[in-house]
Amino acid sequence: MAQLEMARKGIVTPEVKKVARSEGLDETLVMQKVAEGLVVIPANPCHPGLEPRGIGEGLSTKVNANIGTSSDISDPEVELKKLAAALKAGADAVMDLSTGGDIDAMRRSIIKNCPVPVGTVPVYQAAIKAIKQRGAIVKMSADDMFDAIEEQARDGVDFVTVHCGVTRQVLAALENNPRVAGIVSRGGSFLAGWIRHNKRENPLYENYDRLLEIARRYEVTLSLGDGLRPGCNADATDNAQIAELMVLGELVKAARQADVQVMVEGPGHLPLDHIQANIKLEKQICHRAPFYVLGPLVTDIAAGYDHITGAIGGAVAAAAGADFLCYVTPSEHLGLPDEEDVKNGVIASRIAAHAADMVKGVKGAAEKDMGMSKARKLLDWDKQKLYALDPDKIDAVRRRAVADSHACTMCGDYCAMQLSSQYVETKHEC
Amino acid sequence: MAQLEMARKGIVTPEVKKVARSEGLDETLVMQKVAEGLVVIPANPCHPGLEPRGIGEGLSTKVNANIGTSSDISDPEVELKKLAAALKAGADAVMDLSTGGDIDAMRRSIIKNCPVPVGTVPVYQAAIKAIKQRGAIVKMSADDMFDAIEEQARDGVDFVTVHCGVTRQVLAALENNPRVAGIVSRGGSFLAGWIRHNKRENPLYENYDRLLEIARRYEVTLSLGDGLRPGCNADATDNAQIAELMVLGELVKAARQADVQVMVEGPGHLPLDHIQANIKLEKQICHRAPFYVLGPLVTDIAAGYDHITGAIGGAVAAAAGADFLCYVTPSEHLGLPDEEDVKNGVIASRIAAHAADMVKGVKGAAEKDMGMSKARKLLDWDKQKLYALDPDKIDAVRRRAVADSHACTMCGDYCAMQLSSQYVETKHEC
Repeated sequence: MAQLEMARKGIVTPEVKKVARSEGLDETLVMQKVAEGLVVIPANPCHPGLEPRGIGEGLSTKVNANIGTSSDISDPEVELKKLAAALKAGADAVMDLSTGGDIDAMRRSIIKNCPVPVGTVPVYQAAIKAIKQRGAIVKMSADDMFDAIEEQARDGVDFVTVHCGVTRQVLAALENNPRVAGIVSRGGSFLAGWIRHNKRENPLYENYDRLLEIARRYEVTLSLGDGLRPGCNADATDNAQIAELMVLGELVKAARQADVQVMVEGPGHLPLDHIQANIKLEKQICHRAPFYVLGPLVTDIAAGYDHITGAIGGAVAAAAGADFLCYVTPSEHLGLPDEEDVKNGVIASRIAAHAADMVKGVKGAAEKDMGMSKARKLLDWDKQKLYALDPDKIDAVRRRAVADSHACTMCGDYCAMQLSSQYVETKHEC
Repeated sequence: MAQLEMARKGIVTPEVKKVARSEGLDETLVMQKVAEGLVVIPANPCHPGLEPRGIGEGLSTKVNANIGTSSDISDPEVELKKLAAALKAGADAVMDLSTGGDIDAMRRSIIKNCPVPVGTVPVYQAAIKAIKQRGAIVKMSADDMFDAIEEQARDGVDFVTVHCGVTRQVLAALENNPRVAGIVSRGGSFLAGWIRHNKRENPLYENYDRLLEIARRYEVTLSLGDGLRPGCNADATDNAQIAELMVLGELVKAARQADVQVMVEGPGHLPLDHIQANIKLEKQICHRAPFYVLGPLVTDIAAGYDHITGAIGGAVAAAAGADFLCYVTPSEHLGLPDEEDVKNGVIASRIAAHAADMVKGVKGAAEKDMGMSKARKLLDWDKQKLYALDPDKIDAVRRRAVADSHACTMCGDYCAMQLSSQYVETKHEC
């Protein structure tokens, strides 16, 4: 029996138990949210050593790190180092987006070494196979797509991005409302190209039942991809994007009916004042399915610093109800991220997630800030490390220039914390 | 005649002219906003080579970088390098917060080498003088404070932070509503300690007219400091903070009546859902005076990455109406920033400012993103550099791993931009 089915039958699975414990919530509450589809727990039984994470309403905001080879850079050792960096920085999930080298071996190696949920985009592999065997992505067969999904599910992947919402009707909406940046989702462009070239409907949409069967059989959570997500601020919240979202809303219902856990992916590039509307729309149109956003990036001009741009959008999105943040690294739009980029991307997204969790009322979130603030007031540097997102960084910065005083080199002898304690908070002074 | 007086008389000063030109706005409009006090142009006639900046309603959001020595680290050459880094990264203003070494020489050197407005916090110098001459900060005299302000104004400082709002009544509000982090403003803690120790009212408040005379004489813009700004999220928007803001509102009116340009400083540490309320409060209580915020930092636990925390808060604040963002560097809470920190702090704040300007409707803001997006769609890397916040960074990341294709190493052969152009946007294909 699948998670969703068991939850509906009132069975608290070991995964629900673990998620409830790590969130500090009641098991029955978590089970009920899984039953309603408001929370997903991507947990493939073929992923040994998995520490499951819950994603959705009422839980802490989760962070995903994308890693994987490309056709230009393809070294499995480097990717495993990136995996380790992502985990150390606190990623709640990792997606293997490999498109270079031995993709199968890479995926299996990542699953084996990754205790958090692993996601993939199987259509990449189908596309690469089509290029090798038939010379072009658009020559993929429907079987290529479903076979790739099934193979990856069998390997133990916990969730798969599937671009089922890129339909002929959605592409017509795109054609009628041209964009500045067109399609920027890689999987989305594969499917759109395929549909246009073959003059046929998207097999992942047309044969959605076949996809649900695979997902049900291998207990893979579906992450409905946003192939039409805006690729620049000027294209945000446009007809094509919303047309696709409407399709995804229908597919959410069908997945839940088939006992398949499902979440929805979202933008992308959004001006600050579009973010809340996008979250509300997804929650309404997609029946409160967990929302997994990429960024969102609140400006297009910050290449080289898009982890910051994404943290701004991610914090606002998560505060408005987004459940799962896909990180963006400083290398986004420029090249494949390296190990340091991965770390910085995860930390930036975790800052966004935590800032949102504080105002979402997530259990234990504000308490961390309180602990940090009390330790900071006492100038207790060791205690601050207990609460800091990255304790090593505190040492690294302070080692650079150790102050004579027990304060820090910024204020040196003139530390407000010290002065305030000495003169203002000592009541007998006044 | 001072800026404010001339604006009220309908005179378009050279400074108003320059600001209008750089903002792409009508000169008369800018002059009217200066006349109403909604825009300030900090421009001390004794600051040679100044390129004035306007700060306030309807203008682009400005970014300030704090530099300066501390008692632990004090090398004038290093500070001049930081100044150059801040300017290269695009800072609109620089504050010299030096408290170590030859403070006078440092300030004069910064003013001489800085084409953007320079701000200071003169009470630092008064406090240090009091320590040297009388053994304790609390032994400052009122004259020490006013003399420091006058001396720095005479040197050509364009704006000064003055903690006039730290009054006995405000400290009573603090005492009745204890805080986790107490007072974290350095100047605020000097004044609060002074008031408590001497059992007297804040001279900068009590003799505000004397301050206005100096400001008027030297054409220095007042930046009313927030000595009671919250130093952690738990203390945000509390009684002491708002009590001080109410005092500042009165002082804004008095400054305007004396033809003195004035802006108001604000938090600090604020949870995401407090930010809009704080901006609205300031704009209402302080008669729409330009609002200059520090961060705000939306969580306390991200030491080492507070430029990101500050960019999240700064973007939300500026979108809600904040006019001037003081950067926060990665070293905040840990030590004095170095050159690299200064650069990263300015860039992070500029991302926040620009993301906000796009939704504030600031002239020319969205056009940059449009230019970038069109260049990105064409995979035109050189053209992207024309619009990028940091063109050098684009080269640096791409140099690390040059792709075979003209795309980038992230997607390599499987570039959505290329595929979309090839299959989707070529109409005859369908």
